[in-house]
Amino acid sequence: MLIEKLIHSLRYLPGVGPKSAQRLAYYLLQHGKEKGLELADSLREAIQKTSHCKRCHTLSENEFCNICSSNKRNHEQLCIVETPIDVLAIEQTSSYHGLYFVLMGHLSPLDGIGPREIGITELTNLLAKESNLLKEIILATNPTVEGEATAHYIVNLIQEKYKSNEIKCSRIAHGIPMGGELEFIDSNTLAKAILGRVVIDEF
Amino acid sequence: MLIEKLIHSLRYLPGVGPKSAQRLAYYLLQHGKEKGLELADSLREAIQKTSHCKRCHTLSENEFCNICSSNKRNHEQLCIVETPIDVLAIEQTSSYHGLYFVLMGHLSPLDGIGPREIGITELTNLLAKESNLLKEIILATNPTVEGEATAHYIVNLIQEKYKSNEIKCSRIAHGIPMGGELEFIDSNTLAKAILGRVVIDEF
Repeated sequence: MLIEKLIHSLRYLPGVGPKSAQRLAYYLLQHGKEKGLELADSLREAIQKTSHCKRCHTLSENEFCNICSSNKRNHEQLCIVETPIDVLAIEQTSSYHGLYFVLMGHLSPLDGIGPREIGITELTNLLAKESNLLKEIILATNPTVEGEATAHYIVNLIQEKYKSNEIKCSRIAHGIPMGGELEFIDSNTLAKAILGRVVIDEF
Repeated sequence: MLIEKLIHSLRYLPGVGPKSAQRLAYYLLQHGKEKGLELADSLREAIQKTSHCKRCHTLSENEFCNICSSNKRNHEQLCIVETPIDVLAIEQTSSYHGLYFVLMGHLSPLDGIGPREIGITELTNLLAKESNLLKEIILATNPTVEGEATAHYIVNLIQEKYKSNEIKCSRIAHGIPMGGELEFIDSNTLAKAILGRVVIDEF
């Protein structure tokens, strides 16, 4: 029964089907008892002690996340992303040193997700406080239909409210991924890459 | 730090690399807090309370596993497998109603795994007790080099020790998997399938 319960619980993990859950459970019970206990503990601890940063809404074990509470970040730039893992992905590139705001989702009217369901109200509150410092807002929502719509919505909102502040809105570049081959890229992306071509002097 | 620790712990799972571990961790923290706690608990409980069945050595939360302690099983048949998950796989077919013995591994002299490291001693003890009831021993180790060697070793051992008992040793059939296409089957398997062909009357 305990083993079946473990297999059942493992199926909550995304991408883990019945067979994988079995394999994981037996692996943990046969070869990884110690590591398994460590996993159980760190899972429980992380879930219980992690909540959202009060400023940017990313996942954080403190009231304010490491980025928001750092004094080394550029307060003139704000990057808006959909989820905490996007923050992590951008941080891992070491190419951005501004602050973030995490929407925790994207607009999706068909699923009943409007501006209130994602963090637009919180974003408005944040902008009310920080807009006088801000020089650039980078929209880094995903290049999906919903992500694009969310980016447009936010840009409209900012241009309406902060017309006088001269805040620049930008969108992360879309195009051919590095190492990608033109032959295998979908035509939508290729079209974006051609339309968004960069003059070589600018490199 | 807690999130990093969770990501690190998730990497203990087989087949989970750094990216998947990140994805799993953020998924659990964002969407699956309750389910995540349930997973942490069932993992801890299963690891702490599960050990090996005293008779067949499969994983069990009781002294004797459900199969060994059932009075509905055929005590004349013994199926020898490598790991507990093999027991589960055979049980799921509902085509075998005898007892099992789990070796917890296979012979692999190059890795220093000899008869003592897998459960050969325990198997000998079991046979000493149960051989007078036994009519058939089914070798269901994997059809790998090590699995085949292990099967051969056990067959030799049984034929030496229990010559007079007339215990039949059998090996699970190797051949084309159901639904498989000859075109895509490796020639080793195809050779096994041809050499091991079954006369149609026997069906």
